[in-house]
Amino acid sequence: LERQVASLEEYVRKHFPQAEYIVIKDVASGLKENRKGLRKLIDLARRRQIDAVVVAYRDRLTRFGFTYLEELFKAYGVRVVVAFQEEPKDYMQELVEDLIEIVISFADKI
Amino acid sequence: LERQVASLEEYVRKHFPQAEYIVIKDVASGLKENRKGLRKLIDLARRRQIDAVVVAYRDRLTRFGFTYLEELFKAYGVRVVVAFQEEPKDYMQELVEDLIEIVISFADKI
Repeated sequence: LERQVASLEEYVRKHFPQAEYIVIKDVASGLKENRKGLRKLIDLARRRQIDAVVVAYRDRLTRFGFTYLEELFKAYGVRVVVAFQEEPKDYMQELVEDLIEIVISFADKI
Repeated sequence: LERQVASLEEYVRKHFPQAEYIVIKDVASGLKENRKGLRKLIDLARRRQIDAVVVAYRDRLTRFGFTYLEELFKAYGVRVVVAFQEEPKDYMQELVEDLIEIVISFADKI
């Protein structure tokens, strides 16, 4: 995670040299809709305290519903920027963990 | 689907007797983020032409990211009402179809 933050900070300094920024980290899976960091991001957007959200990877913001969140931020005039297209090393592990969680959540509904 | 619309109309007439309403149907899975009906709903909300969205079931609005959509509609002053808690008869089939689609989409990422 620390390495991801470092490369994201580098990205922001390079592409938005004038921008002030804060770092928000979420360790929870992108499947969880009620993550603390995400809640904070949405609050900042609602209070018009940010102009853009820069995430390392698309799945980092959310596993599902990315377009919904993008639309939500847009409603508050906030742009969503995805910094990196390549997937990180632990990508496969995250994918498998998320898939297992999905199967469990579906099993709960039966 | 027609039966679902009929019971939803009955619900709206009972709970919001004064309300004017339009019916929007989506046949696509609640997994798809880019459904035509959903796009139309969001457009109506953005143009402040609706006050509330009434869906038959939570999963009908979206399989994942319900809270994101709820938040998006709230940003436009639109309330989301879930009419029925019980699941319809074809619920299991939908669940299985969605799960298969998820597994396929995860497999595509590998």
